[in-house]
Amino acid sequence: MCARKIAGVLGATGAVGQRFILLLADHPDFELKVLGASSRSAGKKYIDAVVWKQTDLLPEFAENIVVSECKSDAFKECDIVFSGLDADYAGPIEKEFVEAGLAVVSNAKNYRRAQEVPLVVPIVNPEHLDMIEARKADGKKSGFIVCISNCSTAGLVAPLKPLVEKFGPIDALTTTTLQAISGAGFSPGIPGIDVLDNIVPYIGGEEDKIEWETTKILGHLSSDKKEIRALSSEEIKVSAQCNRVAVSDGHTECISLRFKNRPAPSVEQVKDCLKTYVCDAYKLGCHSAPKQTIHVLEQNDRPQPRLDRNRDAGFGVSVGRVREDPVLDFKMVVLSHNTVIGAAGAGILIAEILLAKKLI
Amino acid sequence: MCARKIAGVLGATGAVGQRFILLLADHPDFELKVLGASSRSAGKKYIDAVVWKQTDLLPEFAENIVVSECKSDAFKECDIVFSGLDADYAGPIEKEFVEAGLAVVSNAKNYRRAQEVPLVVPIVNPEHLDMIEARKADGKKSGFIVCISNCSTAGLVAPLKPLVEKFGPIDALTTTTLQAISGAGFSPGIPGIDVLDNIVPYIGGEEDKIEWETTKILGHLSSDKKEIRALSSEEIKVSAQCNRVAVSDGHTECISLRFKNRPAPSVEQVKDCLKTYVCDAYKLGCHSAPKQTIHVLEQNDRPQPRLDRNRDAGFGVSVGRVREDPVLDFKMVVLSHNTVIGAAGAGILIAEILLAKKLI
Amino acid sequence: MCARKIAGVLGATGAVGQRFILLLADHPDFELKVLGASSRSAGKKYIDAVVWKQTDLLPEFAENIVVSECKSDAFKECDIVFSGLDADYAGPIEKEFVEAGLAVVSNAKNYRRAQEVPLVVPIVNPEHLDMIEARKADGKKSGFIVCISNCSTAGLVAPLKPLVEKFGPIDALTTTTLQAISGAGFSPGIPGIDVLDNIVPYIGGEEDKIEWETTKILGHLSSDKKEIRALSSEEIKVSAQCNRVAVSDGHTECISLRFKNRPAPSVEQVKDCLKTYVCDAYKLGCHSAPKQTIHVLEQNDRPQPRLDRNRDAGFGVSVGRVREDPVLDFKMVVLSHNTVIGAAGAGILIAEILLAKKLI
Amino acid sequence: MCARKIAGVLGATGAVGQRFILLLADHPDFELKVLGASSRSAGKKYIDAVVWKQTDLLPEFAENIVVSECKSDAFKECDIVFSGLDADYAGPIEKEFVEAGLAVVSNAKNYRRAQEVPLVVPIVNPEHLDMIEARKADGKKSGFIVCISNCSTAGLVAPLKPLVEKFGPIDALTTTTLQAISGAGFSPGIPGIDVLDNIVPYIGGEEDKIEWETTKILGHLSSDKKEIRALSSEEIKVSAQCNRVAVSDGHTECISLRFKNRPAPSVEQVKDCLKTYVCDAYKLGCHSAPKQTIHVLEQNDRPQPRLDRNRDAGFGVSVGRVREDPVLDFKMVVLSHNTVIGAAGAGILIAEILLAKKLI
Repeated sequence: MCARKIAGVLGATGAVGQRFILLLADHPDFELKVLGASSRSAGKKYIDAVVWKQTDLLPEFAENIVVSECKSDAFKECDIVFSGLDADYAGPIEKEFVEAGLAVVSNAKNYRRAQEVPLVVPIVNPEHLDMIEARKADGKKSGFIVCISNCSTAGLVAPLKPLVEKFGPIDALTTTTLQAISGAGFSPGIPGIDVLDNIVPYIGGEEDKIEWETTKILGHLSSDKKEIRALSSEEIKVSAQCNRVAVSDGHTECISLRFKNRPAPSVEQVKDCLKTYVCDAYKLGCHSAPKQTIHVLEQNDRPQPRLDRNRDAGFGVSVGRVREDPVLDFKMVVLSHNTVIGAAGAGILIAEILLAKKLI
Repeated sequence: MCARKIAGVLGATGAVGQRFILLLADHPDFELKVLGASSRSAGKKYIDAVVWKQTDLLPEFAENIVVSECKSDAFKECDIVFSGLDADYAGPIEKEFVEAGLAVVSNAKNYRRAQEVPLVVPIVNPEHLDMIEARKADGKKSGFIVCISNCSTAGLVAPLKPLVEKFGPIDALTTTTLQAISGAGFSPGIPGIDVLDNIVPYIGGEEDKIEWETTKILGHLSSDKKEIRALSSEEIKVSAQCNRVAVSDGHTECISLRFKNRPAPSVEQVKDCLKTYVCDAYKLGCHSAPKQTIHVLEQNDRPQPRLDRNRDAGFGVSVGRVREDPVLDFKMVVLSHNTVIGAAGAGILIAEILLAKKLI
Repeated sequence: MCARKIAGVLGATGAVGQRFILLLADHPDFELKVLGASSRSAGKKYIDAVVWKQTDLLPEFAENIVVSECKSDAFKECDIVFSGLDADYAGPIEKEFVEAGLAVVSNAKNYRRAQEVPLVVPIVNPEHLDMIEARKADGKKSGFIVCISNCSTAGLVAPLKPLVEKFGPIDALTTTTLQAISGAGFSPGIPGIDVLDNIVPYIGGEEDKIEWETTKILGHLSSDKKEIRALSSEEIKVSAQCNRVAVSDGHTECISLRFKNRPAPSVEQVKDCLKTYVCDAYKLGCHSAPKQTIHVLEQNDRPQPRLDRNRDAGFGVSVGRVREDPVLDFKMVVLSHNTVIGAAGAGILIAEILLAKKLI
Repeated sequence: MCARKIAGVLGATGAVGQRFILLLADHPDFELKVLGASSRSAGKKYIDAVVWKQTDLLPEFAENIVVSECKSDAFKECDIVFSGLDADYAGPIEKEFVEAGLAVVSNAKNYRRAQEVPLVVPIVNPEHLDMIEARKADGKKSGFIVCISNCSTAGLVAPLKPLVEKFGPIDALTTTTLQAISGAGFSPGIPGIDVLDNIVPYIGGEEDKIEWETTKILGHLSSDKKEIRALSSEEIKVSAQCNRVAVSDGHTECISLRFKNRPAPSVEQVKDCLKTYVCDAYKLGCHSAPKQTIHVLEQNDRPQPRLDRNRDAGFGVSVGRVREDPVLDFKMVVLSHNTVIGAAGAGILIAEILLAKKLI
C-alpha cells in the first residue's frame, strides 16, 4: 500500500473547512496535516481556534494541529490543498498557492469563470480535469487550481450529463430551487427569523451562477485541452429561480427541460438513462464515488431532503417525479446534498479523481 | 341602511368553516345565523362541537349557535350559504341545497369542472358570475352554486388577468409552488415530521388542478352566458410543480410566462400594468375588496410569506422580482394568502360581489 | 380633546424601535415626531435608513421623517422619549437625555439595577412610578428614566402579582423558559441553523436577569418613595432555566411556586385570583391596557404561542395548566408576547400610565 | 463464534418497529427472522406492507420477509421478541407471547406498572433484570416480559443513577421537557401546524409516566428478587412539565434536584461523578453500550439536539450546564435520543444484556 498523500485545508475554521476536515478523517488516500486560517487563529491549536458546528464530533486527530496562516510556505509539503476560503479572501491567497506550485481544489467562486480553470462536478465532468495534464506537457509549472461548482449547480447538472450523452443536447432548462440554509455558512448565516414560517425568494448571485456555470460544466474541452468552451446561449437557455427554505441540508430543485432532437425520448427512456448511469469516478475506483450516481425514486412524494439527502453518503443525487411537461419536454425533482456533492465532498472526490488520473 | 343578508356555513367545524365564521363576524352585509356540520356535531352548541384552531378567538356570537345537520331545511331562510365541506361529502349535500333553491358559494372541488358552474377568483374573473343572471332569465329556479378556485390557482391567475387584458394572450406558463400547510386543513393535516427540516415535493391532485383551473378562469363566457369556454391546450400551455413547505399561511409561486404577441412588453410595462390594476370588486365597493389588488414589491428578497401575506387583509396579492426569463419572457414571484384569497376569503368576496350585482 | 403629547424614539431603525413606531401609529395620546438613530442613518429619510422587518407595513407618517442623531437637542420638544437603543450605546445617551430634563422610557438594561430607577411591568407594578412624583417634590429637575423589564421577566411576574396580593409572599419560584427568537433582534439575531430542528439551552445573561429583576419588581417602594427595596434572597428564591426555541413571537414559561403561608390556597382559588385580577392601567383607562389582564385557559394543551400570543393585542398574559406541584405548591404555564408586554408595548403602556398619573 | 440468536419484531410496520429493524440489521448477536404486524399486513412482503419513513434506507434483508400475524406460533423459534406494538393492542398479544414461553422486550406501556415486570433503562438499572433469573429458579416457565421505559424518563434517570450511587438519595426532582416529535410516531403523529412557530405545553399522560416511572427505575429489587419496590413519595418527590417542540429527534430536559444528605456535593463533584460513570452494559461488553455513558459538556450552550443527539450512536446521554440552583441544589440540561436510548435502542441493549447475563 502506498503512503497517503499529504493534504492541507485553507479556511479551516469556516463551515466548508470544517466539512473538509470531517471528510478527511480516516481517509484512505489523504492525510490531513496542515490547517490554514486567519491570522486571528494562526498559532492556536485547532480546537481552541474553531467554533465547531457539525453534527459529527471534531475528529481527534485535528484537535491539536496548530493552525497556520494562509501562506504557501506552510503548505509546501502538501500534495493537495483544499480551499474553503471565503470569496472575499480566496482570490490572492489561492493565486499565491498556485504560483508556488501547489495543487488547489477550491470551493470559492473567484476563479470559476477563468477559461483555463476547470469547473468540475466530480460525478459529471471529470474529463475537464484533463486540462491539467495537457498543461503539464507544455512544461508549465505544476501548480493549478480546480474549482468546485456552486452547490445548486451541482445537483442540477447531475442528471443532465447522462441525458445529454444519450439523447443529445438540451436546448432549454429551467430550475426553481428550494435551498438549505447550511449553504450560507454560519457566521452568521441565515437569520432564524428569515426561515421560520417563511421563504426568502432570493439568494444573491445564485441564479446567475446556476445559469452560466451550467454552460461551462456541460461545455467541451478544446481539442488542445487548453480551455473549456462553454455552451453559448444559442445552444442552451438556462433559467433559475432560487429560494431559501427551512431545511438544514439538501437542495431540492424542480426542473424542466427540452431536448433539441425530435422526437424526444419517453419518460421510461429518461428514467432508464438516469438509473443506469455510472459516473467515471466510480469506474476509476475512487473511494467516495457513489455506487449509484443517480437514484431514481418511484414514490410520488420523493425525494425529500430529510429522508434522501444522505444516499451514498451524500455523493449520490436523487431524482423523482420524472414526468412529461406541458411546456418543455420533461419535469422532475432533483435533490442533492449541498455540503457534500455540492461543496466539500465534491472537493474530496475531485482530489480522488486527480489521484486516480495521476495528476497529483 | 338595509338589513343584512342571512348567511349559513356548511362544514362549520372544519378548517375552512372556521375561517368563514371569523370573516363573517361583524360583517356589514351578512349575518351568520346557521351552522351546519356532521350529525356527530348536530344539536350541540357550536362551542362544544368545535375544536377551534384559529389564531383569532372564536367570535362570541357563534359560541351558542346550535349546530344543524347539513340539510337545506335548516338553511331555508339563508340568502347565501358558504360551504367549507370536505370533497368527500360536498357533492350530494351541495346538490340538494341548489335544488332547494339556495345560493351556495363552495370551497369544495366537486363542481368546479361543471361548465354551467362559474369558477371564480373574485379579484380576477367576477364577470363569470353573469352566468347566474342569465340563468335566472331562463326562468329556472334560483338555486345556484359558485365554486371558489383551488388556493394555489388563485395566486397564480391574479397577475395574469391584467397582463392578458393589456398585452394579449399568454401562450406558455409555468409555476413552481411552495405551499403552506394550512391549505391541508388540520384533521390531521400535514404531519409535523413531513415539514420539519424537510420539503414534500408533491401534493396530490394539485398540479392537475392548477393546470386546468387556469384555463377555465382565464376562459370566456359564451355569448348566451350559459357556459364558460375554457382555453384550449392550443391557446395556453400550463405546467405546475407543487411543493409543501414549512410555512403556516401563504403560498409562494415562482412563475414564468410567455406572451403570444411579439414583441413582448418590457419589464417596466409589466410592472406598471400590475401596479395599476384595480379589480372590479373594488370598483363595485365591496367591503373586503383589496384597495391595492396587486402589490408590486421592488426589494430583491420579497415577497416573503411571513412579512407580506397579510397585505390588504390577505385579499391582495404580492408580486416581486419581475424580470426577464431566458426561456420564456418573464419570471416573477407571486405570494397569496391561501386561506383568504385562496379559500374562505374568496368565498366572502364572491358573495359581496353577488350582492353588489343583485344576484342574491 | 387635548393635544397629543409629542413623542420621540431612540434607536428607531432597530427591532425595538420599529415596534415603537408601529405602536405609536394613530395613537390617541402620542404623536411621534422625532426619530433618532446612529450617525450613519442621521440625515436620511426614515424609509431610506431602515430595513423594515415587521409583518405590519411601515406606517406612512413615519416614512419621511428625517432621522436625527441621538442627542437631546433634537428631542427637546418631546414630552416622552422611547428608547430602543442597544445596551452598547444606551448608557451615556440616555443619561444625557435625563440630564437635559427629558422623560425616557427605555428598553435597554443599563439602568435597570439603579435603585432610584423604577423597573416596571405596566400590568404589574405601576405603583413604582410614584417614585417620579416624589422626586419632583424634591425640586430636582424633571428628567427621569423608567426601565422596561426583560421580556421573560414580564411574563413571569404577571401572574405573581395578584397571587402575592391575595395569598401572601412566594418563597420559592422556578421557571423554565422557551423563548422566541424575535427577542434577540435581527442584526443578525439568532442564526437559522440554531433553531431549525434544534433547541439552544442558553441565553446569555437571561437567567440572571430573571432571577434579580423579579425581586425588584415584586419589591416595595420605600416610605419616602425614593427607592425600591428589592426582596432579599431570604424572602424569595428564584431559579430560571432559559431556552431558545423555534418560535417567532411569544415566550412560554413553565413555572412552579411555593407560598410562604400555610395552608396554601387551592387550585381553584389560584385560578379565580388570576381570572379576576384587573391591572391598575386598565382602571386608569389607559388606551393599551388589556381588558383581561390574565387569561386563564382551561384546555389541557394551552396556552400555545401561535394561538394565544395576541390576546388583548399582546398586552394580556395567558396562563394554563394550573395544577398542584409535587415539589413546590403549584405549577402552571405562562405565555406572554415578548415584543409587546415584554418590550416596546410595555414602554407605550408605561407612558400611558405616566400620562394618566400626570407625570408627563 | 456462536450462532446468532433468533429475533422477531412485533408491530414491525410502525415507527418503533421500523427502528428495531434498522438496529437489528447486521447485528452481531441477533438475526431478525420474524416480523409481525396487523392482519392487514400479514401475508405481504415487508417492503409491500410498510410505509418506510426512516432516514436510513430499508435494509435489504428485511424487504422480502413475509409479514406474520402477531401470534406466538409464528414466533416460536425466536429467542427474543421485540415489541413495538401500540398500547391499544400490546396487552393481550404480549400476554399470549409470555404464556407461550417467549422472551419479550416491549416498548408499550401496558405492563410497566406490574411489580413482577422489570422496567429497565439499560444504562441505568440492568440489575432489575435479575428478577428474571430468580423467577426461573422458582420453576416457572421461561416466558417473561421486560418493559422499556418512557422516552423522557430514560433521559431523566440516566444522570440520576450515578449521582444516587455516589451522593445518596435525591429527595426532590423537577424536570421541564422539550420533546421531539418523533416520539409520537407518524400515523399521523404531531400535526405540522402544532409545531410550526409553536410549542404545545402538554403531552397526554407523559408527566404522570415520568413521575412514577422514575420511582420504579430508581427503586430496589426485593431481597427475594421477586419484585421491584418503587420509591415512595416520602422518599422522592418528582415533578414534570412536558412540552412538544419543533425538533425531529432528541428530548431536552431542564432538570433540578436536591439531595437528601447535607452538605450537598459541589458542582465539580457532580460533574466528575457523571463523567466517570461507566454503565454495567459497557462493562458486560454489550455491542450497543455507549463507550461514554454520560457526556458532560462544558460549553455554555450545549447540549443541543441537532448537534449532540447522536453521541455514542444515540446510546449515550449528554449533560450540560451543571450549576447550582437557588431553589433545589443543582440544575442541569439533559439530552437523550428518544428513539434510541428512549425506545427501540433501549430494547436492543436490554436484549444484549439479557444475553450477556445468559437470561436468553
